[in-house]
Amino acid sequence: MTPRLGIGLDIGGTKVLGAIVDDTGAVVEEHRVPSPTGTWAGLLAAIVDTIGELRSRRADVACVGIGAAGMVDLDGTIHYAPNVPAFRSTTVRADVDAAVGLPTVVDNDANVAAYAEARFGAARGMKDALVITLGTGIGGGVIVNGRVLRGAHGFAAEVGHFQIDPNGPMCACGERGHWEAMASGTALGVMAQAAARRGQLAAVLAAAGGDPDAIRGPHVSAAGHAGDAEALALIDQYAFNVAIGLVGLANIFDPGVIAIAGGLVNDGELFLGPIRTHFLGHVEGSVHRPTPEIVPATLGERAGVIGAAILALDLTPVGASAAVPRGRP
Amino acid sequence: MTPRLGIGLDIGGTKVLGAIVDDTGAVVEEHRVPSPTGTWAGLLAAIVDTIGELRSRRADVACVGIGAAGMVDLDGTIHYAPNVPAFRSTTVRADVDAAVGLPTVVDNDANVAAYAEARFGAARGMKDALVITLGTGIGGGVIVNGRVLRGAHGFAAEVGHFQIDPNGPMCACGERGHWEAMASGTALGVMAQAAARRGQLAAVLAAAGGDPDAIRGPHVSAAGHAGDAEALALIDQYAFNVAIGLVGLANIFDPGVIAIAGGLVNDGELFLGPIRTHFLGHVEGSVHRPTPEIVPATLGERAGVIGAAILALDLTPVGASAAVPRGRP
Repeated sequence: MTPRLGIGLDIGGTKVLGAIVDDTGAVVEEHRVPSPTGTWAGLLAAIVDTIGELRSRRADVACVGIGAAGMVDLDGTIHYAPNVPAFRSTTVRADVDAAVGLPTVVDNDANVAAYAEARFGAARGMKDALVITLGTGIGGGVIVNGRVLRGAHGFAAEVGHFQIDPNGPMCACGERGHWEAMASGTALGVMAQAAARRGQLAAVLAAAGGDPDAIRGPHVSAAGHAGDAEALALIDQYAFNVAIGLVGLANIFDPGVIAIAGGLVNDGELFLGPIRTHFLGHVEGSVHRPTPEIVPATLGERAGVIGAAILALDLTPVGASAAVPRGRP
Repeated sequence: MTPRLGIGLDIGGTKVLGAIVDDTGAVVEEHRVPSPTGTWAGLLAAIVDTIGELRSRRADVACVGIGAAGMVDLDGTIHYAPNVPAFRSTTVRADVDAAVGLPTVVDNDANVAAYAEARFGAARGMKDALVITLGTGIGGGVIVNGRVLRGAHGFAAEVGHFQIDPNGPMCACGERGHWEAMASGTALGVMAQAAARRGQLAAVLAAAGGDPDAIRGPHVSAAGHAGDAEALALIDQYAFNVAIGLVGLANIFDPGVIAIAGGLVNDGELFLGPIRTHFLGHVEGSVHRPTPEIVPATLGERAGVIGAAILALDLTPVGASAAVPRGRP
């Protein structure tokens, strides 16, 4: 049987990544443009151009799936998107559908990335899985019984935003001590900067040119790989913060697997090892039941386009024309 | 059409409550016996007797649903049940099914209570809902897309067990600062005892006969209803603890409604009012999207038997004989 083809778009603050993906999860064409900032009209034009470019290479695409960095409701309208100013109560699904004449599905970027990992990546074969991206913030997608957790309005899986320490640092959302503020990739850099200002982390500080404000996560990773004891202690502390949030989510969701995405995946066991150790030390009832493995995500930066396209294909009946899929995935 | 009938059993540490429930959620017969402690053989005999007593009143029951205080896997085996010593890697579903010859379904007691509230109670009509019981501990049931959240192994929705304060009190599970340790009904009493020992809460202490150790939640509630300022301040502090956990769960699940069960529901707005205020002050993106209402559960102590029976009826095909429903609800 000929594979069905869908277009997947991943729309973030800096770029629009588009791809044609077949129903086995393979990327067969790809196109990337910078995100025009400012207005929805400008961003919509870039989206339409990207779709047009991709369709000029393969005419037989069935649908469009969009993963967008923002809070997306069940009809594909974006309600809040702090990192993409062009999104502002924007009816993305309806507008793209009308502009290109293809059935269109829109979901949050972390949700579609999780769906891709659950269908073809690190969580393949699992009906219940967590995919957690430790990046600028913490993005999360939750697969429950094979489907993306959307909630009553589409805004579920804001998994970075639960308090783990009332005295912790302020989160970008304005609340104190959220997991995101203590366990994102950004938080690792902030922890290292603070330690350097206290006179610690000499090797890391030197690698950053002697300026504490210039320290970023990769400086810590590099020192950790080199065996620097202070860097390894900081990594252990950071891994504990990551693990405590994963413990709560595992107790709540009982996932079959937890896949971790984000830059630190490239550091292999340097982070994942201590994260696993702290996780197993604190997860509920670990002696009474199976506990989920913590594994690196495998699809990398293409997870978003693959998941968006596959979600659209899964929700679009064979032979459907525009505007068919609506409501919850 | 004649309503279908199912037997629901709610098995806790002190009692076995049994009922015949029709498919509109109405309890048509009820029978209660103390939980024999110690052995599964003794508890199984009590379960079989209860089912026999109920069937002697109405012969036309189709199935048995059991809500049990413990970690129940997807085949109805209990893996861990600290409050019911008779459960110890017990194959509850298989044993009851074999003993009574009716299709049997087993789930956690908080899960089936949540299912009842979602079908016929405070969360009726909601496909996504949280039901949180603030009692000795914190019991939780989560409804996702109309179904009970079970997770990969059946152990999901341990919602009391995520850390909200690394310096908080020790939880019964052995972890520090879990939500359950800071926001259960028990925690309210513990907070009041500590305050009385510090020389505060004079009115509450007097009501408890002058012994700080004798203070329980109802003493605090009574003083709060009487307008005692210290009691009201403590209730506000407790309500904040409850709200911070609800905020995290709401950010994660985006429920259509949050139903609160447990003794404090009888105190009406005394607790629910400040819980709502703190919740709305901290939930993610409340200006950008609908936020869930926080309402009292309505089915009271019968929620468990109703939910267990309805879950069994929903999973048992019309005309089925024993041992049909298996796997995940």
